[in-house]
Amino acid sequence: MSKHVVVIGAVALGPKAACRFKRLEPGSKVTMIDQAPRISYGGCGIPYFVSGEVNSVTDLQSTPYHIVRDAAFFKTNKDVDVLINTRATSIDRQAKTVEIVNVLTGKTETLHYDQLVLAMGSKANVPPFEGRDLKGITAATNLEEAELLRNAAAGGQVNSCVVVGAGFIGLEMAVAFADMWGIETTVIELQDQIMPGFLSKSMAAMAKRDLEEQGVTVLLGESVKRFEGEDGAVTRVVTDKRTIDADLVVMAVGVSPNTALAKEAGIECDPRGAIKVNEFMQTNDADIYSGGDCVTIPNLVTGKPGYYPLGSMANRQGRVIGTNLAGGKATFPGGVGGWVVKLFQQSACGAGLTIENALKEGYDAISVHVEQFDRAHFFPEKALMSLELVVDKPTRRVLGIQGMSELGDALTARINAVVPLLKAHATIEEVSNLEVVYSPPFASAMDIVNALGNVTENVLEGRNHMVSPATFSELWDGHDSGEIFFIDTRLAPNAVPLVEKYPGMWHNIPNEEIRARISEVPADKPVVLVCNTGLRSYEAMLLLNELGHKDVRSAAGGMAAQKKLGSDI
Amino acid sequence: MSKHVVVIGAVALGPKAACRFKRLEPGSKVTMIDQAPRISYGGCGIPYFVSGEVNSVTDLQSTPYHIVRDAAFFKTNKDVDVLINTRATSIDRQAKTVEIVNVLTGKTETLHYDQLVLAMGSKANVPPFEGRDLKGITAATNLEEAELLRNAAAGGQVNSCVVVGAGFIGLEMAVAFADMWGIETTVIELQDQIMPGFLSKSMAAMAKRDLEEQGVTVLLGESVKRFEGEDGAVTRVVTDKRTIDADLVVMAVGVSPNTALAKEAGIECDPRGAIKVNEFMQTNDADIYSGGDCVTIPNLVTGKPGYYPLGSMANRQGRVIGTNLAGGKATFPGGVGGWVVKLFQQSACGAGLTIENALKEGYDAISVHVEQFDRAHFFPEKALMSLELVVDKPTRRVLGIQGMSELGDALTARINAVVPLLKAHATIEEVSNLEVVYSPPFASAMDIVNALGNVTENVLEGRNHMVSPATFSELWDGHDSGEIFFIDTRLAPNAVPLVEKYPGMWHNIPNEEIRARISEVPADKPVVLVCNTGLRSYEAMLLLNELGHKDVRSAAGGMAAQKKLGSDI
Repeated sequence: MSKHVVVIGAVALGPKAACRFKRLEPGSKVTMIDQAPRISYGGCGIPYFVSGEVNSVTDLQSTPYHIVRDAAFFKTNKDVDVLINTRATSIDRQAKTVEIVNVLTGKTETLHYDQLVLAMGSKANVPPFEGRDLKGITAATNLEEAELLRNAAAGGQVNSCVVVGAGFIGLEMAVAFADMWGIETTVIELQDQIMPGFLSKSMAAMAKRDLEEQGVTVLLGESVKRFEGEDGAVTRVVTDKRTIDADLVVMAVGVSPNTALAKEAGIECDPRGAIKVNEFMQTNDADIYSGGDCVTIPNLVTGKPGYYPLGSMANRQGRVIGTNLAGGKATFPGGVGGWVVKLFQQSACGAGLTIENALKEGYDAISVHVEQFDRAHFFPEKALMSLELVVDKPTRRVLGIQGMSELGDALTARINAVVPLLKAHATIEEVSNLEVVYSPPFASAMDIVNALGNVTENVLEGRNHMVSPATFSELWDGHDSGEIFFIDTRLAPNAVPLVEKYPGMWHNIPNEEIRARISEVPADKPVVLVCNTGLRSYEAMLLLNELGHKDVRSAAGGMAAQKKLGSDI
Repeated sequence: MSKHVVVIGAVALGPKAACRFKRLEPGSKVTMIDQAPRISYGGCGIPYFVSGEVNSVTDLQSTPYHIVRDAAFFKTNKDVDVLINTRATSIDRQAKTVEIVNVLTGKTETLHYDQLVLAMGSKANVPPFEGRDLKGITAATNLEEAELLRNAAAGGQVNSCVVVGAGFIGLEMAVAFADMWGIETTVIELQDQIMPGFLSKSMAAMAKRDLEEQGVTVLLGESVKRFEGEDGAVTRVVTDKRTIDADLVVMAVGVSPNTALAKEAGIECDPRGAIKVNEFMQTNDADIYSGGDCVTIPNLVTGKPGYYPLGSMANRQGRVIGTNLAGGKATFPGGVGGWVVKLFQQSACGAGLTIENALKEGYDAISVHVEQFDRAHFFPEKALMSLELVVDKPTRRVLGIQGMSELGDALTARINAVVPLLKAHATIEEVSNLEVVYSPPFASAMDIVNALGNVTENVLEGRNHMVSPATFSELWDGHDSGEIFFIDTRLAPNAVPLVEKYPGMWHNIPNEEIRARISEVPADKPVVLVCNTGLRSYEAMLLLNELGHKDVRSAAGGMAAQKKLGSDI
């Protein structure tokens, strides 16, 4: 049965759905329209084009073997008709038609459809700052903006750049400017940490440190008031705290579903504007499908609606839609919000809820931080990985995991392994026993992800009283009060420099000497223990507990975590 | 309640169980015995010590912060008594005693136990070859053997080395000798591929190619007949096909549970000699636990008993035993046989069944091979990853996954992600929709592991008729017969050199020209299509099917896979 499928939007989900459908029903006709001149590109690659790592914008539009995916490519290779520079202006669901207009010529046309795919993606949020129309202020969500940024950076005219927003795109853009072009870069974030909602305070502090070490200025809890310019071009960003010179401003304060067209046609959306779809990716109109950045899908951790504007989601959902356009019954059950971002030396990665989000969602949750080498500690090439597990105390269910490491692929190897557990509502025992592939060049015999489950179990069962790296840092900041007795439980060569730096404040009692020197530990003060990564201090805590000291806590991640945080201990 | 736990064996599982138990019950007494002088070492690190990558043997015995885990360490830091150079000679389960003997002094003693842990590990298989007692012939399973090998290599006296057995340890040892010491190395394998049981024919051919490219000679389907020597030292290995000079021979023909002691005491074992344990890691004697290389645990893919002699299994199971010794109810449900090995340029990794094993187990199984970049193809640093999925046709259940790549951590990121699906008996739809973390430096928007699920679905549903890389190579070897019509569907610049090399045999019809040039495709011959990685040839196949050609197959993995195989096309 030949039919006509119209696809509105030709970046990620649209082409995927169109091509999948055509492979299943070669006799049917597909028309894909897009308001831009260039289509089917890897939008997530924009920061790497801006940085220069990706040489040409056409690389983002090409197949792995360098064929540009333009309208002619889709016609010849996929038998999909593409109308570029064409905007859909309205949908008549009764008549099953879409009104379109060529944005260059103004010519309008009516397309009849049997089935329709809404793949308009998202658009950058633009807060109503004064001066936001000045030249040099742009988002980084499409190829035109990408070229503006790359050309400005490559032109050598940009001395300073301000990125507004410390989410994924903001940070990737900051890295692009500072790392590849050596431009003085400032990131401004309204909230009190970078990557809010994606990293805990400790992890966010580590990520911030990585940015700062490479010269990026990160301003937290600071809000943009207005942009100022000269001759119509931006020159300064004014915040509630200061004025910053800026030749270029990247707005990276999130994206919203680009769904006005759908709403006007009576397609059901959530308050955010995301289209509601069922597991077949159908909207409330059974002949209209949507996916990718346009839709809300279930968050499989909370069971509530989630929003995951990611190219990977768009691609997987696009295939499901393509199958179902051809009469299939493919499903897309939802997501757990997995993500990864490359900063400078460090990469960060996570899935599920952070501790802050878990508490906000009403879970009686805790989080546990572990630092450990990501492979056999005797193997020459390795990195100290940071992982944090978020669990629901009453049910022992795993709610989320986040991590940071210099070896990003190895980090994704742990997060990806936990994703199916999040989806399955597994308990921490399944993290302790999780089978991760092992040989010394790739993992530890007791791998960090298993250790994370083990430590979490010890915490839940009251055997391990930990303070997070961020909390230890705060506690130490108050050491002058003398309220807490700090003990470094490492061997003397590691600890003595700090004992000498902080006389009377930083004490050294190695695990091996605790029994003999127990009288040195005051009975009337809280004790906080620290070692290299938290393992020795845990054992020291057990020993102190056994010897009658109950108010003892161990610094999660030890000095390794403090170093990553940028603590000046 | 203070009790006495005796642990026989102090390498991996033993120390883990002992220390975990002591942390939970600090008041109890633990005695751990081992027949060797050195204990608690990373046996899996032996190849990296032999290669020189790990500098000193004590590195394998040390904590991450360079404290040697010797008897004194266990006494001081863990309050565990260790008797080295001490062998257990018999167990009296009625009396709850273990007879021990000091192997240096001959002094015997009787230890009473409340609970016993059998952690004797495994021993290298030694086939009864003539001459096997010659000097220079050794396994590589303990520190003494490791030092013999390292000293021989480092001494500069070894010109040629023969490794018998092409499993993990054999290949790691071959890499150690050839890569780091430049020693002429030959691997002899009885079966017709390397890593039998762990890799398919195609993948094994790729791994073999990697070894050969670095100068290792790999002899398949060849059996050792005897060793010959001079002055008591090995000089030659005689096989059924040739004689090979050898100053050093590494026996790597697998390991067997070291459980004679247990069997004699009436502990139930399987025919292999592996101790049977329940999910609490208890033997048929509720006061006797075992794990690691000593035991059989369920294979969670087949439901049958499995044997996984891996340091990671030993560590995780050791913790479970430690918990249960202290009255806990921790469980270890089984494994799916995950593994990873670093070769030279390539690493190989897998979990679950290979296609050969799946068929042997009676599944109506197929396997599907995919080649794809392991991250966004426009990202500068990337590798072409090979993945193979094994599925049960009637149920669509995923039975196994294997892979190979230059970027090993990225490979483990995919295999680890599929491990929980194997355990959950998930179907291929869950591979298609598998959430792997995404951004261009780490994954593709349609990631290779999702593509693997998608391609498998297309194969199962009869849309994609593939030949494996090994099969394509064989078919092309027979091209002179003219029985198959080979079409390279890439654009001319890629294909023309081969058209010129194989006139009349290698045809080039790019996808874009198939409709126009359909008359060039013979109607009466099987057609085999090939492109770069298998994507274009799949689309070409669909088009040929649409145009009436039904006997068309597409080369899985395309020319990329052929290159990895070392095909001389």
